[in-house]
Amino acid sequence: MKIVFSQDHKFQDGKSELIDGQIQPPVEKPARAEQILSAVTEARIGEVLAPAPVDRALLQTVHTPAYLDFLETAWDEWVAAHGDWDALPLDWPARTFTHRVPEAIDGKMGYYSFDAGTPITSGTWRAVTASASVAATGATLVADGERAVFSLCRPPGHHAAADVYGGYCFINNAAVAVEALRARGFSRPAIIDVDYHHGNGTQAIFYGRGDVFFASIHADPRQEFPYFLGYADETGDGAGEGANANFPLRWGTGWKSGYEEALEAALDRIAAYGPDVLVVSLGADTYHEDPISQFTLDTDDFPRIGEHLKRAGLPTLFVMEGGYAIDALGRNVANVLSGFEGA
Amino acid sequence: MKIVFSQDHKFQDGKSELIDGQIQPPVEKPARAEQILSAVTEARIGEVLAPAPVDRALLQTVHTPAYLDFLETAWDEWVAAHGDWDALPLDWPARTFTHRVPEAIDGKMGYYSFDAGTPITSGTWRAVTASASVAATGATLVADGERAVFSLCRPPGHHAAADVYGGYCFINNAAVAVEALRARGFSRPAIIDVDYHHGNGTQAIFYGRGDVFFASIHADPRQEFPYFLGYADETGDGAGEGANANFPLRWGTGWKSGYEEALEAALDRIAAYGPDVLVVSLGADTYHEDPISQFTLDTDDFPRIGEHLKRAGLPTLFVMEGGYAIDALGRNVANVLSGFEGA
Repeated sequence: MKIVFSQDHKFQDGKSELIDGQIQPPVEKPARAEQILSAVTEARIGEVLAPAPVDRALLQTVHTPAYLDFLETAWDEWVAAHGDWDALPLDWPARTFTHRVPEAIDGKMGYYSFDAGTPITSGTWRAVTASASVAATGATLVADGERAVFSLCRPPGHHAAADVYGGYCFINNAAVAVEALRARGFSRPAIIDVDYHHGNGTQAIFYGRGDVFFASIHADPRQEFPYFLGYADETGDGAGEGANANFPLRWGTGWKSGYEEALEAALDRIAAYGPDVLVVSLGADTYHEDPISQFTLDTDDFPRIGEHLKRAGLPTLFVMEGGYAIDALGRNVANVLSGFEGA
Repeated sequence: MKIVFSQDHKFQDGKSELIDGQIQPPVEKPARAEQILSAVTEARIGEVLAPAPVDRALLQTVHTPAYLDFLETAWDEWVAAHGDWDALPLDWPARTFTHRVPEAIDGKMGYYSFDAGTPITSGTWRAVTASASVAATGATLVADGERAVFSLCRPPGHHAAADVYGGYCFINNAAVAVEALRARGFSRPAIIDVDYHHGNGTQAIFYGRGDVFFASIHADPRQEFPYFLGYADETGDGAGEGANANFPLRWGTGWKSGYEEALEAALDRIAAYGPDVLVVSLGADTYHEDPISQFTLDTDDFPRIGEHLKRAGLPTLFVMEGGYAIDALGRNVANVLSGFEGA
């Protein structure tokens, strides 16, 4: 399985996220991608390729031009207002507010975001466009005939909506990959999101569309971030009705106590949709030692995820999302891919 | 002019707010109320009275029972989850999310709030109910025949909506006062909010009602917190159409460069409404040295605000809101009240 990777991920190296009431160094950090690259190299998953630059036109099939302009210019506006430390928003158009875009950078950040844990830094734009290029190049390789490809994206993408960032995500790499695949002739892509957290951005992007299927297995939003999307009764809207399937699971879920069953149910739904290509939003934060997560999968369970995904029998693009147990992250990711290759 | 004050304000003594991308001690701190009390005492504004405890039934005329339950229990739930440092939310149901109340304390805090600058502490509930009692007791004194009363509330209230906190505000003291006045027979209360920031919570509470008039003079939300409410075209909804008047002003506005004109226009609108009582949401953060604000009023301008308010010729309750230039805050507030008394 070919691997696409860009060293430019390292330009997203935040110093600040607000979590548990305190500012801490983000758990989403460059060492994550380095560990994963090291582990997939050691596991001989396949050749590592550099991505081709991503076209802005492709990004605009997923994100609004105004949002992309904002991401590209936010750091400079922030530095002019506050200095060159990490940019975090301070308030949001939550309930009771209207939705107009302010002029001030703090207001724009609040408008375009949904959390205080996703710093914009001097290198954010460079890193997130590189991450999108990794996804898009992976899609190209699949369209060129590869059975499976691993896009080792960082920063992750699945929390980012058409014009909203948060959850360490700015550009929705999985959605960019889907649009790249569609541009190359695939007509019924399906996405399966196995990150511990609900892929709220991906769901929102495709929620009204019937030409892309989205399934997500994740921690119950009643208990877990992002809290406000990911319920089982969110089934799509309009033309998208029936093309969205959420499998929320309670804290403490392990492979045999609900995870395998949900994975099989999600893949059944995807099979019934009749897709022609599969994009996997691959998080390894389902691991029992993940520092911000509460599922109980063990390292031996991750190959089983790969085996199940292989049985879908589809051209498959893996797009890296979350996973924060830094010592085990690479091995768990490599195990998913090895399980897929060996199945 | 009688003054109502409770020492219990000091139980809201936060250690953390997120501002300018950093965690800092909140500018909304106990010394504010102490400075104001000292200055109004020195200026011989009037007798200082302790409040009577506020009835929960009165709070429920403004806030939902579920929200009040949340405020009362949030600290204990937070401590159980994270320990006993200040509680700050980390994500919000901003755009693209649905609005269901999660189980987890972080999710509930995100649901019920709109910023990361308003810490819940061990003493928040005690302080905010005391602050509401200060407002309610002031209303009782006005209903008993006082020409004007100063409710020296802290924490402030005007950013809090029926079930949303933020901007240092939890319970909307001005709205509680309005409901206390209505319960005592006033039928057409008007509120004028002269805090530097838009009174988004007060507006939201009364937006659909024609029996309470709300006018606010504040920094343009395009430039300033809370960013997502306070535009001039927000005129009320349904039965409230025409009973909401916003006067947003640009950064740099001073007394002669727009403030006096807006104050006169707001009072003209209030006069046209024909109110029988006036509640003033009194902020002194319009002062040119306020650390988080960008208007340019000087100490000599504050008596003029009082003079203009006096000319409305109404029983008047002053409810303290913001103001963070700690050395000048007391004098500026006392100047408004002296201007009113002397006019």
